[in-house]
Amino acid sequence: MYMLGLDVGTTGCKSVIFSLDGSVVSSAYGEYRLYHRKPDWSELNPQEVWEKVVATIRSSINRSKIKPRMIEALSTTVLGEAFIPVDENGKCLYWSMTTFDARAEEQTRWWEENLGAKPMYQITGQPLTSSMPIYTLQKIQWLRENEPEIYKKTWKFLCWEDYVNFKLCGRPVTDRSVATRTMMYDIRKRRWSETILDLAGIDEALLPEVQLSGTPVGEVSSEASEETGLAEGTLVVAGAHDQACGALGAGIVGEGPAKDATGTVECIAVVQSEPILTEKMRTEGFAVHCYVMEDSYYTFGFNPCGGVILRWFRDNFAEEEFEEAKRAGVSVYDILTRMASKSPVGSMGLFLLPYFEGSGTPTFNRKARGAIIGLTLAHGKRDIVRSILEGLTYELRNNLDAMEENGITITELRAIGGGARSPFWLQMKADLTDRRVVVPKVTEAAALGAAVLAGVGSKAYRSIEEGVRSVYREKAAYTPREEVTKAYERYYTLYKRLYSELKGLFVDVGKI
Amino acid sequence: MYMLGLDVGTTGCKSVIFSLDGSVVSSAYGEYRLYHRKPDWSELNPQEVWEKVVATIRSSINRSKIKPRMIEALSTTVLGEAFIPVDENGKCLYWSMTTFDARAEEQTRWWEENLGAKPMYQITGQPLTSSMPIYTLQKIQWLRENEPEIYKKTWKFLCWEDYVNFKLCGRPVTDRSVATRTMMYDIRKRRWSETILDLAGIDEALLPEVQLSGTPVGEVSSEASEETGLAEGTLVVAGAHDQACGALGAGIVGEGPAKDATGTVECIAVVQSEPILTEKMRTEGFAVHCYVMEDSYYTFGFNPCGGVILRWFRDNFAEEEFEEAKRAGVSVYDILTRMASKSPVGSMGLFLLPYFEGSGTPTFNRKARGAIIGLTLAHGKRDIVRSILEGLTYELRNNLDAMEENGITITELRAIGGGARSPFWLQMKADLTDRRVVVPKVTEAAALGAAVLAGVGSKAYRSIEEGVRSVYREKAAYTPREEVTKAYERYYTLYKRLYSELKGLFVDVGKI
Repeated sequence: MYMLGLDVGTTGCKSVIFSLDGSVVSSAYGEYRLYHRKPDWSELNPQEVWEKVVATIRSSINRSKIKPRMIEALSTTVLGEAFIPVDENGKCLYWSMTTFDARAEEQTRWWEENLGAKPMYQITGQPLTSSMPIYTLQKIQWLRENEPEIYKKTWKFLCWEDYVNFKLCGRPVTDRSVATRTMMYDIRKRRWSETILDLAGIDEALLPEVQLSGTPVGEVSSEASEETGLAEGTLVVAGAHDQACGALGAGIVGEGPAKDATGTVECIAVVQSEPILTEKMRTEGFAVHCYVMEDSYYTFGFNPCGGVILRWFRDNFAEEEFEEAKRAGVSVYDILTRMASKSPVGSMGLFLLPYFEGSGTPTFNRKARGAIIGLTLAHGKRDIVRSILEGLTYELRNNLDAMEENGITITELRAIGGGARSPFWLQMKADLTDRRVVVPKVTEAAALGAAVLAGVGSKAYRSIEEGVRSVYREKAAYTPREEVTKAYERYYTLYKRLYSELKGLFVDVGKI
Repeated sequence: MYMLGLDVGTTGCKSVIFSLDGSVVSSAYGEYRLYHRKPDWSELNPQEVWEKVVATIRSSINRSKIKPRMIEALSTTVLGEAFIPVDENGKCLYWSMTTFDARAEEQTRWWEENLGAKPMYQITGQPLTSSMPIYTLQKIQWLRENEPEIYKKTWKFLCWEDYVNFKLCGRPVTDRSVATRTMMYDIRKRRWSETILDLAGIDEALLPEVQLSGTPVGEVSSEASEETGLAEGTLVVAGAHDQACGALGAGIVGEGPAKDATGTVECIAVVQSEPILTEKMRTEGFAVHCYVMEDSYYTFGFNPCGGVILRWFRDNFAEEEFEEAKRAGVSVYDILTRMASKSPVGSMGLFLLPYFEGSGTPTFNRKARGAIIGLTLAHGKRDIVRSILEGLTYELRNNLDAMEENGITITELRAIGGGARSPFWLQMKADLTDRRVVVPKVTEAAALGAAVLAGVGSKAYRSIEEGVRSVYREKAAYTPREEVTKAYERYYTLYKRLYSELKGLFVDVGKI
């Protein structure tokens, strides 16, 4: 008996088939384009994405060498915010605006003025700010104002989970965690917010039904079976937002451990039994969501520039290492982190502020900028690369500290994503945060989380907790080294002072 | 009739033969090693330097195709501070500690405690600070304390001008500008300072005779003639410190124009008829010296990291451009500045503080560090290179502003050194400082200045002013572009704020 976890992200999708003990049977990956038709637009072409989803599912089944019927159930985990207006025949009426599509600034400001960020946070758990117009709600309003014909023709506004479920089994069902990311969902009442929909003038009928993650939604139709290669009748189970499934795949079902996902963006997620919705949480930018279990919530902090700064460095300043990597057949990141490991703790007095696209939580300042401070002629490339890794890790620590100040205890980190491939960086994270850092055996944590939900829906597991116990294993663990932790403690204090000294200047630098 | 200008610097020496109209007849260059026998030591081997000086003079004569007798006179311009203890036979007793040899910190602190930086400045024009133990006085004291046998055997402590004159004509004579850089010379009384020598317990007999620049010292001896290829009887004329000769070679004989010499270090020199020795001048680090004419003084500001930051960038981050330059047979700096010219004014909001070895005038802070602020993912290599050039130029502007606040009017810049080879950078200097920037025809300004002094000593010119009128020509001039100047005005304000915000932090960063 097998489970399929489907992960639909911003730049590509993955389909992974798991056995019940969490072993990967096969996986497939497909990429699609992110379109920027205007400078501040960022869109997916739904047709193109769906074709890749279909091809990826098919490819993972082919590679698995198992009969499709052996796949008991599947569940989908998705990027948040992005949505598709579909008509009654399921036809996509417009492209899908992704998170960083910034066109709905005016509509976001409207909410600041007409409801206010504080009440909005109390209802939805999402920090509203017109400097980050990322949510579905305001983008639907933008569509109504700018493409009224399309709005009128729309039967449902579907996020990617709901859309995939609809395509597979005919029922446009979403789950609470994905619903939370629309900014229209009341996370405590666990239903679409009347207050918000009334104020927006959006009919609830335009939105999908919301189910708890792990709830059966339907069965794969004959049409979908033909398209994807899945067996007709395969159970389709409500999945979750990719940060939620990532946390689940990293074995997190309660307070204590935090998922640290380091890709382009770095995202640190924790689970609570009660939502913490203080003003401090809101102004620091922490978003609070319904999690995959009844009476559970999850919060995440984020750094918009995580691994992307390393990529920026690679693309601009590492031609030599790039060539070397090609010749040696290794990753250029391995070469860069090996270089960095030759620079001492603290990068010989070098500090990098990783705010290359503004800061995420907890300083939550779109106007912040990147900086490298402490340069001398003795610094070389290895010190700069180390300062990038350290800067990102100071920022991780900054998030953990802020979460703890907000009453969230974090006992250890579960590292996933590209950043989890570097033992050097993982040890640095342990040293600098003074916490155990664990790398789970399955790196495709979000797909694994979705597979757990599929297993719960199909009753292969009696509960999410049992599912997690069955699939979650540690592959490696890093423990803090006292001496290094002590040194970093001192440098981290300086790191935080840097931001507070420069904060005022960033406003004026941004005007250039 | 020809003049020879000899320029003895920290890493090499130049011998240039000029005709009376300032045309270069021939030139030769020789390099020697700078030794670092201990981490904070920095020394020249006098034997090695002298051999290179001799070879270089000989080579310039050979290349000129003129008879040695046609060279009427020569004069020497030198690095400051560095000295050689010689015995009565002229034997060098110890290596020559250069400016950045930092061993005499304790002796420098002794002066802070026993005379004080304020009286020291009033006498010598030199800003005393134990964080910059650069001067001859304290290094002689170090030698007395740490190498008493050598001190006892010493007949004279000679700076490089005095040593060269002594070797050429047997008379150890220096000039006022070189004497100023020992920190033992009273610039207003124009003699070795009794106060300082008494307090130091140094016998004036141990120091060379001081003459006004342009005064005949003696004639090349038969022994020196044989060694160098100069004709016996060639007039040896008192030269000057290289910053003084550089200013002279850039045509500066009075207030108004400033010499901007951009090499490893950037040095901005101006001439006055009265020394300005205010507390503001002192704390900002401006050194005031006797100039080459009677009743004239010169002051310079400096940035310890000038072109060296570009070299640092080249060595660490420009392998690709380095290879490209080799293939194309051009300078890598040409490629880098061409790249920089493609980044917009203000480097897209990027600021570089060039304090990679602490700051020079006017912030005069050894603890300052370099920084790059304002980074985004959109910045590339070209923006970083432009931000280096802009950072150095903001710092030039910072010096000009400080000098003007100190009552020194600066009407235009005369650019010499490596930095004067880039039209792009020169135009930036004009725009950012809102001043005309002139490149003199002769780039070897210090050697030309020495040749002018040789011509004055041999009466080829009736005065220094006449000499300068005969030799100084403009090769190119850059005028400020109003729009660009306006934009830079705004960015420069931000640049200055950056330092004041970060100043406090540098102290703690320096402790790492």
